[in-house]
Amino acid sequence: MASQEIETLASALARLPGLGPRSARRAVLWLVKRRDNALDPLINALVAVRDRLVECETCSNVDTQNPCGICADPRRDQKSICVVEDVSDLWALDRAKLFTGRYHVLGGKLSAMDGVRPEDLNIAALLGRVADGGIDEIVLAMNATLEGQTTAHYIAERLEEFPIRITQLAHGLPVGGELDYLDEGTLAQALRARRPVD
Amino acid sequence: MASQEIETLASALARLPGLGPRSARRAVLWLVKRRDNALDPLINALVAVRDRLVECETCSNVDTQNPCGICADPRRDQKSICVVEDVSDLWALDRAKLFTGRYHVLGGKLSAMDGVRPEDLNIAALLGRVADGGIDEIVLAMNATLEGQTTAHYIAERLEEFPIRITQLAHGLPVGGELDYLDEGTLAQALRARRPVD
Repeated sequence: MASQEIETLASALARLPGLGPRSARRAVLWLVKRRDNALDPLINALVAVRDRLVECETCSNVDTQNPCGICADPRRDQKSICVVEDVSDLWALDRAKLFTGRYHVLGGKLSAMDGVRPEDLNIAALLGRVADGGIDEIVLAMNATLEGQTTAHYIAERLEEFPIRITQLAHGLPVGGELDYLDEGTLAQALRARRPVD
Repeated sequence: MASQEIETLASALARLPGLGPRSARRAVLWLVKRRDNALDPLINALVAVRDRLVECETCSNVDTQNPCGICADPRRDQKSICVVEDVSDLWALDRAKLFTGRYHVLGGKLSAMDGVRPEDLNIAALLGRVADGGIDEIVLAMNATLEGQTTAHYIAERLEEFPIRITQLAHGLPVGGELDYLDEGTLAQALRARRPVD
């Protein structure tokens, strides 16, 4: 007997990654009870995102301006580009505030399983940026998954013709990681990449 | 470097029960990429809920009309009221399509821990409905938790003065439940309430 409006909202919310039908229903109810201090702010935030966000034509980041704030920032190192699978990876890296160059978002990863081929990714634009010159280093920051690493290898190969440094994120123990709980793959990588103690 | 709009939306989504900060961020990104077929429908669904839903003055159900569709339905049994903790419980019971009477939503449960006292719940209105007459049976459909059962006992006591039947949901094995996986409390209840085989 839940009204049509509630069912429609529950289905719209249930489509969000991370929310199933049950939690969507609970979320609807939670919102209905908090009209002023949760429902309205959520609507306003969604409308702001819809009306103001654009994709950066240079790096495919999502921002209120095009080129995005990062690409437009003259203080950032123009000589290095960090290549990531998704915008969320860009955000995660940028939150760490360590990389000072600019980014390039592929919009996914090569995947035989999901039928994602090189031409489905934002690779041509990356090659174009490198061909335009002025780039010293490309940091491949793909996820440490099979598909992420396949994508990294593919891009590294395509970039071979350019006289630039191609690097990738180090693999090893995550900070706070306990040996006992780590998978063998990570341990093998960490051992293989071991470094002299400073 | 995620824009202010994105951060605001991520915080608004992260407040929803069932979504943490990480999944909220992922949901934002997912929405940004699906402007037409997910972001717009979600906004429309939220606006519809905000603009059209009201709380039923009789039973506290949430619906597009007041009194709600259930309270206003003359085909429903006017003599029995099923008391539930929350609107979501009402929906769950009503989806089962077994109870043909009307409902009463308490808006929570008694909880010493959370400082919820009888006057914080919608109990006076329930007593009022019963005092108005015409009620034969009150079904107490609280959750089978300590607090739910405390609430049920409290309400049963308050209803003692009225010449009506007060019942509660049966406790026992859930359908499909395997003895081996059930807690001892449920098993004890199921054994205590055992019935002759038909």
